[in-house]
Amino acid sequence: MPPEESFRVTPYEVRGRIDYERLRELFGTQSLTPELLERLGQLAHAPLPPLLTRGIYYSHRDLGAILDAHARGEPFFLYSGRGPSGPLHTSHLMHFELCRWFQKHLGAEMYIQITDDEKSWARGLPREETTRWGYENLLDILAVGFDRARTHVIFDTRSIGAIYPLAVDVARRINFSNVKAVFGFKPSTSIGLIFYTALQSVPCFYPSWIAHRPVLCLIPCGIDQDPHFRLTRDIAEGLGFPKPSLVHSQMAPGLQGDRAMSTTGGPEENALYLSDPPPVVERKIRNAFTGGRATIEEQRRLGANPDICSIWALWRTKFAPDDREFAQITQDCRSGALLCGDCKANLLPRVQGFLKDHAREREKVRSWAESTILESPPGPRTSGTGTPG
Amino acid sequence: MPPEESFRVTPYEVRGRIDYERLRELFGTQSLTPELLERLGQLAHAPLPPLLTRGIYYSHRDLGAILDAHARGEPFFLYSGRGPSGPLHTSHLMHFELCRWFQKHLGAEMYIQITDDEKSWARGLPREETTRWGYENLLDILAVGFDRARTHVIFDTRSIGAIYPLAVDVARRINFSNVKAVFGFKPSTSIGLIFYTALQSVPCFYPSWIAHRPVLCLIPCGIDQDPHFRLTRDIAEGLGFPKPSLVHSQMAPGLQGDRAMSTTGGPEENALYLSDPPPVVERKIRNAFTGGRATIEEQRRLGANPDICSIWALWRTKFAPDDREFAQITQDCRSGALLCGDCKANLLPRVQGFLKDHAREREKVRSWAESTILESPPGPRTSGTGTPG
Repeated sequence: MPPEESFRVTPYEVRGRIDYERLRELFGTQSLTPELLERLGQLAHAPLPPLLTRGIYYSHRDLGAILDAHARGEPFFLYSGRGPSGPLHTSHLMHFELCRWFQKHLGAEMYIQITDDEKSWARGLPREETTRWGYENLLDILAVGFDRARTHVIFDTRSIGAIYPLAVDVARRINFSNVKAVFGFKPSTSIGLIFYTALQSVPCFYPSWIAHRPVLCLIPCGIDQDPHFRLTRDIAEGLGFPKPSLVHSQMAPGLQGDRAMSTTGGPEENALYLSDPPPVVERKIRNAFTGGRATIEEQRRLGANPDICSIWALWRTKFAPDDREFAQITQDCRSGALLCGDCKANLLPRVQGFLKDHAREREKVRSWAESTILESPPGPRTSGTGTPG
Repeated sequence: MPPEESFRVTPYEVRGRIDYERLRELFGTQSLTPELLERLGQLAHAPLPPLLTRGIYYSHRDLGAILDAHARGEPFFLYSGRGPSGPLHTSHLMHFELCRWFQKHLGAEMYIQITDDEKSWARGLPREETTRWGYENLLDILAVGFDRARTHVIFDTRSIGAIYPLAVDVARRINFSNVKAVFGFKPSTSIGLIFYTALQSVPCFYPSWIAHRPVLCLIPCGIDQDPHFRLTRDIAEGLGFPKPSLVHSQMAPGLQGDRAMSTTGGPEENALYLSDPPPVVERKIRNAFTGGRATIEEQRRLGANPDICSIWALWRTKFAPDDREFAQITQDCRSGALLCGDCKANLLPRVQGFLKDHAREREKVRSWAESTILESPPGPRTSGTGTPG
């Protein structure tokens, strides 16, 4: 990225106010056009979710190849993941919610990677801690509601035996220059993290590898994760696998808005955690940053600004699935008809209701979760000692 | 290593004529003294093998700690390994033969690591090929004759599930600076090879990790491998494990002697492979480099030089276990009483006999080999999804 840009986005750093169109151009990705979305809706025989229609996902690489494959009756699969270092918040579920939509309407297999190894290396946390968060996070992810027959979890420290031979092949194609250019690694970077990008690429190829035929992969992710998969795409064909396709979202703003960078309010105040008890949710929403004016009188007269409002972002992404309702909220916000306090009061029961439902679903998947985790296959993968040399 | 040295020794490069005492001083290891060897013999209640008495192993780190532990009745274990990229030759067995002696006389568990992943990365070979060589090499190693109840194989691509959580912990303590300083990695180095040193350290800690108490480790290896384990020793205590101890050997000379560096005779002519058929063995020994004189007359008069002789090195390390016979060979060589042709003719049936016995033993271990390989444990290693968070 040229140094004159006022923002910086890498898989390990997001800084400054992001100009998403400029970022898309810098990364060289395609725009998610109305034509492409319309074709997706036709293939899905279903209305598109707000995540796609409201510009939250706004960029892609080779989504057309996925649609072409589906139109030809060929399967594709979805891949998303989580680096477990703490509890999930509502916006962590976004990619999984989009995956659920794709799975439901286009019948795709779902692969979820839990990268407890990476988070131990990236954050310097004890592995026991990231592994424990991995199990907790997995329950939250599965609670989103996937097809039980078509959902697979690659839990790195548990599933490594199943994926390692492929990881060896991937790592052989990536050298230190490649990862340094993408991630800006330093001399103090853990050798685990240097290796890690191979493991993050593995799920893109795993279904093709075990099926012995190309299976296309679609990855919904934040645009900040694009560099990871650019590297994956660069090595794919040399390994005999198709390049993964991507749909990229903008980053969800924190509840504290731009003030997230300031010292007032810790990072815990900046997000709605799925485990937050009702009084905490109420406090966080009450204190959330909005696009409101300094006084009620001023707001009635000039209206508020939803574009910078963390509450409006919650309506937009998740809590106003009905497009008419969402349009009304937006209009009333801009016109000054809706004051921030009232808007927050309207949102609160939606959030509390969601969290209650989520907690119930989370308990329901508990007994199922263990069986989703890929384990090492028994016995030798290739030639065994029983074969004379 | 200071640039003015005329030789260079790293785990990936051995260059020049090595001054072993100087190398030991540069590496900062201890000399394997007669006092230490005598104490070892007393604890073993057995005569020391030629590998120890004839100066082939000549250096160590903390061998005394192993002897102290054994004297107190505490167990220790042995660790050696093989990077499989081709067939084994006789001198590859040396460390395993020393391990067998330690196991037989001091009752130690044996851990053998087969690094098929590393060799794929280091040599750019297809993984299928290094894995296949791994199984072949393992049969040769087990044919050395280990105690079946106390021998464990960490076959990297097979055993990764069992060792990976520990590898994550190890990799967290090693950064790119550390490995660059030891191995001199370049921008073109595979990210797998950068990570690999973590996996080579894992067997040093694995028995302590699974036993939840410190178990000392002894590694017989070439002095060129010392830098690997210096890094391991540096991180051991931070992980709560004891530092591994080492005994270091000199490097076995090739059959072509110094001429190994020249273009006459390929690398295949430079070693006796365990799979070489009798006519090939005969040819290689006949063509081997010796310390003989230009003419028979000159040799009768001045004697030959065993110190540079590849045939004498074979007698020394393996084929003259009787000390009186070995002393006689050496004396007759130096005096000129023994001509090189006769010496080679004497050696040949010993080598052929060994290779025949080895091939027989190799077939005997075939059915046992598979069961020595560590596999991933079933189910979760730590907290599972069944535990409420």
